[in-house]
Amino acid sequence: MKTRITEQLGIRYPILQGGMQWVGKAELASAVSNAGGLGILTALTQATPDDLAAEIERTRRMTDAPFGVNLTILPTINPPPYGDYLDAIIKSGVKVVETAGNVPADYMDLMKERGIIIVHKCTSVRHALSAQRRGVDIVSIDGFECAGHPGEDDIPGLVLIPLAVRALDIPVIASGGIADGSGMAAALALGAEGVNMGTRFLATREAPVHENVKQALVDATERDTRLMFRTMRNTSRVLRNAISDKVVETERRPGGCAFEDIRHLVAGARGRAALESGFIEDGVVSAGLVVGLIDDVPSCAELIERMVLECRAHLERASRLAAA
Amino acid sequence: MKTRITEQLGIRYPILQGGMQWVGKAELASAVSNAGGLGILTALTQATPDDLAAEIERTRRMTDAPFGVNLTILPTINPPPYGDYLDAIIKSGVKVVETAGNVPADYMDLMKERGIIIVHKCTSVRHALSAQRRGVDIVSIDGFECAGHPGEDDIPGLVLIPLAVRALDIPVIASGGIADGSGMAAALALGAEGVNMGTRFLATREAPVHENVKQALVDATERDTRLMFRTMRNTSRVLRNAISDKVVETERRPGGCAFEDIRHLVAGARGRAALESGFIEDGVVSAGLVVGLIDDVPSCAELIERMVLECRAHLERASRLAAA
Repeated sequence: MKTRITEQLGIRYPILQGGMQWVGKAELASAVSNAGGLGILTALTQATPDDLAAEIERTRRMTDAPFGVNLTILPTINPPPYGDYLDAIIKSGVKVVETAGNVPADYMDLMKERGIIIVHKCTSVRHALSAQRRGVDIVSIDGFECAGHPGEDDIPGLVLIPLAVRALDIPVIASGGIADGSGMAAALALGAEGVNMGTRFLATREAPVHENVKQALVDATERDTRLMFRTMRNTSRVLRNAISDKVVETERRPGGCAFEDIRHLVAGARGRAALESGFIEDGVVSAGLVVGLIDDVPSCAELIERMVLECRAHLERASRLAAA
Repeated sequence: MKTRITEQLGIRYPILQGGMQWVGKAELASAVSNAGGLGILTALTQATPDDLAAEIERTRRMTDAPFGVNLTILPTINPPPYGDYLDAIIKSGVKVVETAGNVPADYMDLMKERGIIIVHKCTSVRHALSAQRRGVDIVSIDGFECAGHPGEDDIPGLVLIPLAVRALDIPVIASGGIADGSGMAAALALGAEGVNMGTRFLATREAPVHENVKQALVDATERDTRLMFRTMRNTSRVLRNAISDKVVETERRPGGCAFEDIRHLVAGARGRAALESGFIEDGVVSAGLVVGLIDDVPSCAELIERMVLECRAHLERASRLAAA
């Protein structure tokens, strides 16, 4: 396939594996890149910037194809040393960085000076326009369907993707709600230049998480996610379990709840433990609405090859109907 | 264009104008049908079954093309005489009925006996499967994006349409979130056989509503709708104004609110008055997220011709990218 982003990123298929905390490691990123997509390591999954540098080297040993690194910058009380992680990325020579959250202007400038291609993920047209003004190369527009942070506007891809395509000059990648070739066909039909997937890649053989987690995604229907932290305007879409049910219920109480009331339930360490141990009731795991569309656990290569075939077949069918 | 539904319904393009209370009258329905789509009268917009019969006759004088009638059956304290409306439809010889809500089995059977094609609109795969079992001919699957009643599952079209296509044997029409040819291309790419639009047809020259309403849709962005009645599990997506803001705010109060507290604000008569007078702050008007995609007030013929050209162009571009 050939779109503006396959050309910019030097990849065979316009399919990105978006950053996923505790998941975006060398095994997954290299498998996606070897299959012709763009694998992405998640910087903050590594405990220190040095660990990130080592993980980048490890990925290089597993693939000759391009891959990227995600750097998500969220406001927290004790922020990680973002600057040091960025230095590690720059020194490593990685040529693609996926950013999300509030990226400081000097970080942007530094990456641009070094010729790094910046794919900025955001959930609204106004943030996408602002990112374009600040010089990012590609916008990954993340609809209401997505896992993790969908924002507070609740605009799904069917409306958000064409709005972003209309508003931006730089290429748009469709993110959220896509898990198969028909979704990819729809994204291209809406004007996107490619797709980003997280949850779908979580249910692949190479994803470094417990098999029970993958099976939980296969078993889940489209009604099995929950939006937590809505009352705090920090919405997060996660797989439904006893914990996310409890958080949502607590938030619904008259007067809502404070983060302090529930932080022990949603601690990142618990989520990580659930991913690794497979006791998925022990923590909160991000998952998008596409869990309803996921029925198997293929290898990344099988998934990508199938998606490409399906995408072409769906576009062929649609074109035939429309032209008749 | 040629899909299963153009064949079943005898129409040139697979574009339906969904039922809209106070709006689905002869002027709009005939304009859509004359332009090659399927116009749909809204039964309950007529004060009595006799009025509906007269409106069907009036539409017939305005078009030789097929059109349909919408019959939405909602639980209310003082229900309208649904059976009499249905009799009027059957006697009129109309061959397509769009149903929504809880349609009694004997109504379904009566329509099927008379050879009426039933297009059932619903917002979930499980309701669509149940409708298929009950013998409806076509399902119009209505995503989270839609105006009016999106249900309580909050599944947007990008996920809901392919799920419905996978689950059903009968043809699927994509509804909600579609307002232009790129959305139509995406719907076909996702496996739908056509599209249903409401809000987009509200902003056409022939829609029998005040010009101020149409201008309000043009001015609105994708962030200008509100979900009312969520706390009552009877969610309704409407255009944002002072009233819908107040309803949502009232619902958010600790303990929520009773319908009695707000019914004077949301009375159907006020919504009807707003549509007719153009004082859009006077009542609540249904509108989907596609308000963000609506930039003009074309005739139905201009809209449909443009959509068909855009749809083909978007599919051609997508196919070219995917095949390269």
